[in-house]
Amino acid sequence: MELFDEGLHSGVNLALNVEKILYREKTDLQDLMIFENSQFGRVMSLDGAVQTTEKDEFIYHEMFVHVPVFAHGNVRNALIIGGGDGGAARQLMKHDGIEVTLVDIDRTVIELSQKFMPSISGGAFEDPRLDIVIADGCQYVKNTAEKWDVIIVDSTDPHGPGEVLYTEEFYADCKACLSDGGIIVTQNGVPFVQETELRSSYDRLKSLFSDVSFYLAAIPSYVGGSMAFGWATNDTTLRKSPLLGLTNRYVEAGIDTDYYTPEVHQAAFSLPLHIQRMLTKDIA
Amino acid sequence: MELFDEGLHSGVNLALNVEKILYREKTDLQDLMIFENSQFGRVMSLDGAVQTTEKDEFIYHEMFVHVPVFAHGNVRNALIIGGGDGGAARQLMKHDGIEVTLVDIDRTVIELSQKFMPSISGGAFEDPRLDIVIADGCQYVKNTAEKWDVIIVDSTDPHGPGEVLYTEEFYADCKACLSDGGIIVTQNGVPFVQETELRSSYDRLKSLFSDVSFYLAAIPSYVGGSMAFGWATNDTTLRKSPLLGLTNRYVEAGIDTDYYTPEVHQAAFSLPLHIQRMLTKDIA
Repeated sequence: MELFDEGLHSGVNLALNVEKILYREKTDLQDLMIFENSQFGRVMSLDGAVQTTEKDEFIYHEMFVHVPVFAHGNVRNALIIGGGDGGAARQLMKHDGIEVTLVDIDRTVIELSQKFMPSISGGAFEDPRLDIVIADGCQYVKNTAEKWDVIIVDSTDPHGPGEVLYTEEFYADCKACLSDGGIIVTQNGVPFVQETELRSSYDRLKSLFSDVSFYLAAIPSYVGGSMAFGWATNDTTLRKSPLLGLTNRYVEAGIDTDYYTPEVHQAAFSLPLHIQRMLTKDIA
Repeated sequence: MELFDEGLHSGVNLALNVEKILYREKTDLQDLMIFENSQFGRVMSLDGAVQTTEKDEFIYHEMFVHVPVFAHGNVRNALIIGGGDGGAARQLMKHDGIEVTLVDIDRTVIELSQKFMPSISGGAFEDPRLDIVIADGCQYVKNTAEKWDVIIVDSTDPHGPGEVLYTEEFYADCKACLSDGGIIVTQNGVPFVQETELRSSYDRLKSLFSDVSFYLAAIPSYVGGSMAFGWATNDTTLRKSPLLGLTNRYVEAGIDTDYYTPEVHQAAFSLPLHIQRMLTKDIA
């Protein structure tokens, strides 16, 4: 049996048995693969890094979406940058009356996800409330005149093509597209193995927003412990949303989740000391 | 460079670069290795499974120890079953006036840890407050007349020699060694890949204690997302210890931690829905 061995972090990798390759497109530019694994179901990998898997995507996507949506309390529209697998879109669609724009640079991931991993988008791509735009996310937020209550930056890691989605310029353009009290959330990697990336995102967002922090979830297919979602907004009350308010919103929304609860939402913002220290210590 | 590839779970493993092997003892009974890895520092593995690493052991050991100690609030003594690396002992030694008994079946792990990974025990093995007993943990708890405020079951996974530390008989013997209001905490594996083990520990402990639950921490060198610590006690108030009380105890103890905070302590008990459902769903 083939072994899929990530080359993402120096010294430590995830090794997955490849039961069966369903799709592979290897060009000079990228290596995209969809394969079966007994633990994770179907797995999509890009350039040797796991992007998403059928069995654990709910953890990532529920926390990415429901945390900002329930903290905000009155989300009418949301923008997803990236997220071509449709997982974030599917979670957003659980909320009544929401309009969503998804901007991905590449139609391929959308098509492959629909074809090989349809449970991840779960019909979101056919939902009339979703507007799909195939475009460069950076250019899109620079040029649009629209505003959103929540912006979800569902990017790959800050190497290669995804790197532009971690710059201060991009964050500033996102800020200009946020409505009053809006929230931007980002994929910020695994702090234990990506301390530098965590810190640079923090510093860049701090220069733009009055409340910047991270919240955590352990994604089984990401190696190195908990993953950090970036959190930035100018409404300093939202991060400390009381449990009762979150619970009322969750019950009222009547949505089905498998990871998210209002208690888990609050708990995710309790950062271990070593991560708090990464954000504040002097760096050269 | 050699690649250390765990064979712990079907389909998914952790792959670590072996920069340098410091010690290896491979017999018919077991394969013990200590090696250098750029991400985790020195790593101790047993039969192909990572036991502990220099760089992330603080997460595991701080959560194993300070959660029950601060929840209890008046721990005078503690029993460690296993824990030959000395990490749990070191965290316990941070608490003034505590007496600790460590029972490990094999002196080798203690000696190797002291020699090759001395930061993990950090002098605990030389502390007069620590009593080291080389014995079978099961037999020890069956025969002793002593009682402890906290029992820490720092076992390997429930395969092979460690299996006896997951039986109802062992838990019942532990219960008999707990003082009033005492707490037993256990290493209960990674729920995402070890659902059956989580559920069987839950059912066994439930038949013995009035309050049984789990609390979570993501250990970077364990694959598959958050790890679960088992929690069992007959004092139903301890798990819900208010934040203010925990904070007062933490400040008063004046101990240094790198992961644990009173907020993280509380947050660790917020179980994601899919884990709550593992505990309650009908199983054959």
